[in-house]
Amino acid sequence: MVDRLVPHFQEELEQLKTRLLEMGGLAEDRVRSSVQGLVERDAALIDRVITGDAPINNLHIEIDGRCFRLLALHQPMAVDLRAIVSAVKINTDLERVGDLAINVAEAVRRYMRHAPVKELIDIPRMADIAQEMLRDALDAYVRRDIELAHHVLNEDDALDSLKTQVFRELLTYMLQDPAKIEPSLDLILISRHLERIGDHATNIAEDVIFMVSAKDVRHHASEIEPEPQT
Amino acid sequence: MVDRLVPHFQEELEQLKTRLLEMGGLAEDRVRSSVQGLVERDAALIDRVITGDAPINNLHIEIDGRCFRLLALHQPMAVDLRAIVSAVKINTDLERVGDLAINVAEAVRRYMRHAPVKELIDIPRMADIAQEMLRDALDAYVRRDIELAHHVLNEDDALDSLKTQVFRELLTYMLQDPAKIEPSLDLILISRHLERIGDHATNIAEDVIFMVSAKDVRHHASEIEPEPQT
Repeated sequence: MVDRLVPHFQEELEQLKTRLLEMGGLAEDRVRSSVQGLVERDAALIDRVITGDAPINNLHIEIDGRCFRLLALHQPMAVDLRAIVSAVKINTDLERVGDLAINVAEAVRRYMRHAPVKELIDIPRMADIAQEMLRDALDAYVRRDIELAHHVLNEDDALDSLKTQVFRELLTYMLQDPAKIEPSLDLILISRHLERIGDHATNIAEDVIFMVSAKDVRHHASEIEPEPQT
Repeated sequence: MVDRLVPHFQEELEQLKTRLLEMGGLAEDRVRSSVQGLVERDAALIDRVITGDAPINNLHIEIDGRCFRLLALHQPMAVDLRAIVSAVKINTDLERVGDLAINVAEAVRRYMRHAPVKELIDIPRMADIAQEMLRDALDAYVRRDIELAHHVLNEDDALDSLKTQVFRELLTYMLQDPAKIEPSLDLILISRHLERIGDHATNIAEDVIFMVSAKDVRHHASEIEPEPQT
């Protein structure tokens, strides 16, 4: 009955996916710019990251609206229901990634008040990995690709060990030279922010696995939920 | 039609709220224990925090199942739809708070390998504020209390300035005595984890405001969403 009044569900779901990919692209760009600003000591670029969150925030609101509209008008079931609730969560994760890019940029701004602590190798690598995890996690969502989602979960270990390596190395610098304590602290915080961006990609990948296969992450819930009709 | 086959919607929604409060209680307990373990240098308590996340993880899965069941069987509209989608998000926030308690506990474990840096005053205060924010945010959800939700948002500033204060003070210790660098770093990380717990309470409060009043956070979405019938 309601279906004649509104566009087709599948069409709207495709639009939702496109918008989520766009949101992911914006989030990725902001992460890339914040670390590029660090490597190139580019204060103008850092300022643009700090003040440029309006597009991602607007898209966050729009995507949330699309999800509620799909839920209210089409009352989807099973995998489609899970896909839309996952989109709400993924949307939140991507908005937080945008916020974390600001946190990185703020730490970079403080870092640039001091002489460079060292040549930066691991932190740009962490940023590359985090961006790739985000991209893969969103691709996995759009293609409902469980294998790719599992690949994202594995990538998280690489990020984790780089974070530990960064920490150990900077600790050595701090112990050797008090002048390096303050800027090293900012690099440590930056590596933590990048790790958290990877955590958000991991969250997205877990949502994809749940969306596609329901059972593996929610076996306890099977008693109270009707069998999904995929 | 479907309503004769399943318990009443309002009754199930009440059960969902009760479970969310229970989840909040568990998360709060874990935060409290991790900081109590720090203050009292209680290694056994810290071990219990690190290994004791099964109850909160199980509840996370159960609550998620309840939300999907409510969405699939009752197809709620307007404020009820927003209440359930908010519950999915709040559930995720509380699970992350549980994870952050583990992060705090892991930092405490490293911290205890060194002599105490200083008497701890601000960090326990941060933990108190973060716990109160969580409690208030969940109360605001259950009672659909916008005023209380706004109160939570304001509390976040207190947490933020304590975090800055902790950072500055510890930086001084680190500059004065290299032996204090490593344990001070862990205290800084602990204060960041507590700040993030406050962020999750803030997220919950924002969800409550959206749930109750829809318009203020989603004005751009009003064009594509039908007017909610509350």
